[in-house]
Formats: sequence, C-alpha cells, structure tokens
Amino acid sequence: MAVYTEVADDDLRRFLAAYDLGEVTSFKGIAEGVENSNFLLRTTRGSFILTLYEKRVRPEDLPFFLELMEHLAARGIDCPVPVAGRDGESLRELCGRPAAIITFLEGLWPRRIQPEHCRAVGEAMARMHVAGSDFGLSRANDLSMAGWRPLFERCAERAHEVQPGLARTLEQELATLEAAWPNDLPAGVIHADLFPDNVFFLGPRLSGIIDFYFACNDFFAYDVAVALNAWCFEKDLSFNITKARLLLKAYGGVRAISRAELELLPILARGSAVRFLLTRLYDWLNHPPGAFVEPKDPLEYERKLRFHQGVRGPGAYGLD
Amino acid sequence: MAVYTEVADDDLRRFLAAYDLGEVTSFKGIAEGVENSNFLLRTTRGSFILTLYEKRVRPEDLPFFLELMEHLAARGIDCPVPVAGRDGESLRELCGRPAAIITFLEGLWPRRIQPEHCRAVGEAMARMHVAGSDFGLSRANDLSMAGWRPLFERCAERAHEVQPGLARTLEQELATLEAAWPNDLPAGVIHADLFPDNVFFLGPRLSGIIDFYFACNDFFAYDVAVALNAWCFEKDLSFNITKARLLLKAYGGVRAISRAELELLPILARGSAVRFLLTRLYDWLNHPPGAFVEPKDPLEYERKLRFHQGVRGPGAYGLD
Repeated sequence: MAVYTEVADDDLRRFLAAYDLGEVTSFKGIAEGVENSNFLLRTTRGSFILTLYEKRVRPEDLPFFLELMEHLAARGIDCPVPVAGRDGESLRELCGRPAAIITFLEGLWPRRIQPEHCRAVGEAMARMHVAGSDFGLSRANDLSMAGWRPLFERCAERAHEVQPGLARTLEQELATLEAAWPNDLPAGVIHADLFPDNVFFLGPRLSGIIDFYFACNDFFAYDVAVALNAWCFEKDLSFNITKARLLLKAYGGVRAISRAELELLPILARGSAVRFLLTRLYDWLNHPPGAFVEPKDPLEYERKLRFHQGVRGPGAYGLD
Repeated sequence: MAVYTEVADDDLRRFLAAYDLGEVTSFKGIAEGVENSNFLLRTTRGSFILTLYEKRVRPEDLPFFLELMEHLAARGIDCPVPVAGRDGESLRELCGRPAAIITFLEGLWPRRIQPEHCRAVGEAMARMHVAGSDFGLSRANDLSMAGWRPLFERCAERAHEVQPGLARTLEQELATLEAAWPNDLPAGVIHADLFPDNVFFLGPRLSGIIDFYFACNDFFAYDVAVALNAWCFEKDLSFNITKARLLLKAYGGVRAISRAELELLPILARGSAVRFLLTRLYDWLNHPPGAFVEPKDPLEYERKLRFHQGVRGPGAYGLD
C-alpha cells in the first residue's frame, strides 16, 4: 500500500507527450503494492497503470521485467504488457525515477482463498513456466539461498526484538538449507512472488497475473513452494492440505513435477518461508516510524517455517 | 492516503447484490483521502467509488452529505452522486461500517496550482453556494469557532513538541477570534474543505468537486477563506495575491461579496488557518507510530496564520 512519489501536473503532461494515449481523464494513486508507486491512469484511449519504480527495483533489471511480460502475453499468458511511446520505448523516466505504462488488467485479487483459487493458480503458474521457457533474457534470483545469509546478518542482532530466539532459529535453519539446497532441479523463469494480491480473478476464472518485479531464473519447484506458502495456509496458519493438493495437481497437469522436485518440496518450502521471514524481518526492524507502509508480520512466516520443518515428505502437501 | 478497511470477496459480493451494477471487473483501493476507505469499483455498468466511512464520520451526518451531492448535482453542480440500490437506498453497511457507492467523477486534481485554477475554483464555489441555498437539511459546523477551543485544550500541553511557544500563539489567537468572530454574515451550505485534491480538472476546465464530508452550514465567506488558504499560498508559503484576486473576483462574479464579508476576510482567514492548524496539530500529536497516514505538517498553517495576522484589510487579498 503506497504511493511514494507525487507526480506534478506538468511532469505528467510532459511524460505522456511521448505516448499516443489521447487525453488524460483520471489519475489516481493505488493503495496496493509496497515496492513501487502505482497510478491508475485513464485516458480517452483506455485504462492503464503507470508505475514509478522506487529504490528497491534496480533499473538494470527493468528490461527483463518488461520484456518478460511481453513474452508471456505473446504466448497466451494473461498479464499486463508495457505500452510503448511513439519512439517504440516503453521504459522512460518520470520524477527522477524509471517509469513505465502497462495495460490495465481486469479482475480482483481474492481476499479469501477458496480451493478453486488454488487449483487455478497452480495451472496458471505451470502455463507461465512453460511459456517462459524460450525467453531470451535471464536474471539471477538475488533473494534465493545465496542471498539469505547476508540478509540474516543485517537482522541477526535485533531479531530478538521480534521474537526471543529468532536469530538462533534462523541460524540453524540457514545451516540446514545450505546443506540440503538442491542445485540441479528443472529451472527457468519464475514469478517468485505469486501471492494472492498478484493474481486476479473475474468470478471463478483466473483473469491474469501481475507484478513481475521479482521474476527471475530459478527452480520451477521453488515458485511452487512460494505459492504453497502464500495460498495454502489458513488465516489461523493451519495448513490446508486440500488446497495444496489442488494446486499441485493442477500444476502437474500442465507441467509434470519430477520425483526429485517432489521430494525436495519440503526443503524448498522451508527456503521460501525463510526468504519471506527474512525480508519481512528486515523491513520490520528498519521501517521508519510513521512510514506509509505497515510492515507485514515476519512471524507469520516463522510459523509457516515450523510447519515445513515438521513435514516428513511431500505427502504432507497432498501428493506422494 | 489510506485504505483502512480490507473488504473480503464475500462481503463485497453480498453488498453489491443489493445493486443493479452488473458484474465487478475491478476493485482497487485508492491512495487518497485520509478520512475514509475509498475503492475504485469497476463493473460491467461503469466506474464507481465505493466509500466505507471510518470513525471520524458520524453516521447520523451521512444523509446530509449524500443528499447534498444529489441536490447540488440536480442544480448543475458537477459532483459525484450516490448510487441507490434496488431498494432505493444509497446508504448501507459493509464490514461493519456505513458505506455508499457514488458515481465516478472524471478529472485530475491539480498538483501545481495555476492562477487559472484559482479563478475556476472561485466561480465553482460561488455556484455551489447558490445551488445549496434551497437545500432542505442542515448540519452545524463542529469545526468552526466553538469547536476550536476544546480541540486546543486536547493539544495544548504537548503543542511545544511541534514548536516552542505554539500553545501561547494559539491561546492568544483564540482569544482574538472569540472576540472578533462575526455572527451575522450571509450563510448557507459550504464545502468547508475545498482543497486542491477535492477539485478536479480536465485540461483547464474544472470538471467537478468531490468529498463533501465536511460540508455544513456556515458563513459563505468562511468557505472563501478556507480556499484562500488552500489555493493561494505558494509552496514556500508566500501569499500569491494574483491568485487570491482571481479567486475572489470569479467568486464575486457569481455571488456578490458584501462589504461586511470583505472586511471580515482577514479574521475568517485567521480562523480557517487556526482550524487546520489545530486538526493537524491534533493528528500530529496523536497518530500512532507506523500508521498508514503520514500526518500533514501543522506548521504550514501556523505560517499562514502569521500572514493573515499581519494583514491590515481585504486589500491584502487583492480586493478592496
């Protein structure tokens, strides 16, 4: 939830002069997305999202993100696509930040996850993995295993402020993951942040996927593990095995999950839990008082991590 | 900037079942407006704003606000109008809060105020004052003179945290205003919060006025004074007399400003400055750390107050 950058009239007018989008009829900041400033832009030609990329996004990564959306959309994946200006460029600058206009995607993200949502997201993720297989660019996942320990070291001293013993839990878990983390699973372009607020539905139908700003090259099954964490826990943090089974079965119906991937799901789910636990912990410890954004609770992911630590095999996710 | 209330899918579906608005195609929280939770709702029938009224709005005032919009719109004032459900009611409940759907108003609020904006807002305000003259409901202004001292008393002890001597400044100013405040100026329904973010433009044309949730019965010239403070100071807090003159002349072209109103403008402008200084001071001292909303700087209005304290007559506003 955030609009970080206020766009002045003149700046907006100058920016839009590079496009062929007609006259602006509305321009409103959107209270969603914590990384960038997003505006709903309506013109006489239609509805669009204008995004100003804030400091967490590296400008050199933007071509990867924008071209990926184009690539996926061209292969039938429902997602926004960048809108090019008259010069053919879709990435330019506004208010000193990289900025792009993308198409508006209809739909609502589900606030209460139903089993059917999990089925749909499993299928859509697999289709996205397949569609991305011939994408020409690549981008390392800087929030995968190698990135966790440095992040941990920036939080370790103060982790006890969030929960006594949390640093120790993380230290032990990182050691386990470093020993057990696979290096040869099927890999390709993954979304890496496929939370419910990034998946839109129109009624029961999945209408598209948004927010590719964590997309990167990594194990497909790691993306699946992120989704298990994001979609299959109830509000009370109990794990819903029915939802997990639906997600995994729907995924597997499009792209077969190998035996090796299945066996490693518990480790990948622990890794994914650690990834979100660490970034949330970092944000929790470092958000300025009075900031616009309420940091998300890191301990939600500590609880999810504990669940996966107790798992004996992929059967816990409804698939053997 | 705020979405306070998260609306779950089921709740939204149940709520919309009372309306004849077709299928929902999009639902996004808007990062504007600090009092209520606002969502841009798109359906197969068009675009709407769904507002959940949060704790600052008294439910018993809502019929006044909603009927006022209808009244003004029926008299040619461009503003949103409430959308009634199939039962004819436009005010109902969602997530335990009073809620209403209003029509979507096209336009952008000006981030950089040009003289032409001030002319347009003066004219539109006068037209609104005239159009409201036969409105059947009334509502006292609880943020006018009688409301300031109680608010001051809740801030006085800690006012020095914002600026040393601020309590003394306010104490003296309140005494002056209590002695000088008029009681017989022309009065009627005023907007009472006509800041730039509540006035939309399409190109140079004023396309409408929004956010009537401070509207009340009070002196017309007090509304003018609020606008002088909101529209005619530059970012460096210098007063732009050209803008003020344009605003006042355009206003007077629609509804004549009497001699008595003109003479009292400096006092009314001081009162308006105190009103926003006090509410901002209160919010500044009382906002919870980590809140979504960044409180506005109270001292902006302390500076504006000082300007009006130094004024010798209405000539300072460009009109004699």
